[in-house]
Amino acid sequence: MLDFAKGGGIIPAIVQDAGSGEVLMVAYMNEEAFARTRRTGRMHYYSRSRDRLWMKGESSGHVQEVREIRVDCDGDAALFKVHQVGGAACHTGYRSCFYRRVGEGGALVVTEPARVFDPAEVYEQ
Amino acid sequence: MLDFAKGGGIIPAIVQDAGSGEVLMVAYMNEEAFARTRRTGRMHYYSRSRDRLWMKGESSGHVQEVREIRVDCDGDAALFKVHQVGGAACHTGYRSCFYRRVGEGGALVVTEPARVFDPAEVYEQ
Repeated sequence: MLDFAKGGGIIPAIVQDAGSGEVLMVAYMNEEAFARTRRTGRMHYYSRSRDRLWMKGESSGHVQEVREIRVDCDGDAALFKVHQVGGAACHTGYRSCFYRRVGEGGALVVTEPARVFDPAEVYEQ
Repeated sequence: MLDFAKGGGIIPAIVQDAGSGEVLMVAYMNEEAFARTRRTGRMHYYSRSRDRLWMKGESSGHVQEVREIRVDCDGDAALFKVHQVGGAACHTGYRSCFYRRVGEGGALVVTEPARVFDPAEVYEQ
């Protein structure tokens, strides 16, 4: 179904809000993360920098419930339509990790009106 | 603005239809592909397997016109909202490369009613 070998054992997982269609984040999955995601119905990822599996929401409680899984033409990427518990996917408190657009001259402009949560309250330091 | 080093010189570029919000494809960009995309307003990518830059539509004429660029919280992925000339992003003729969902028991189910174009007519062999 998916070709993990092509990307050295990982694929990009694109996460889209099942209701609004907003792209919330992109992260990586190895075969085990994909299997756990399918088995549990909750998004699991593989962290390249920490070399470990993690479940979205394991710290914050803001899990992502899978509504649909799509695979691309080449089988080397997957798209997940999810329900984002807590309303925000980004660890910064914004709804989407893509909360900044590239403006004139390359300046980054925040596109969301406000954070959904305060990261200091959600993530224990 | 973007951290290309983290992924060995490339970032994933997620492409979303600026009108419908549908995710059309994901591909990779190196720094030069990103610079050309910004300069020309047309999507350019870096092919890992062929080790070269390419412009979407260079063979088919089905270019992607950039409407907005977003960067993610970590600066290691970008989201592009585009107008897809020709109506289909996938080389198979489907609108989106993510035209198959994972169904019961892992079977892949085509979600689009029909191809937008016949690949044999669009891509010369």
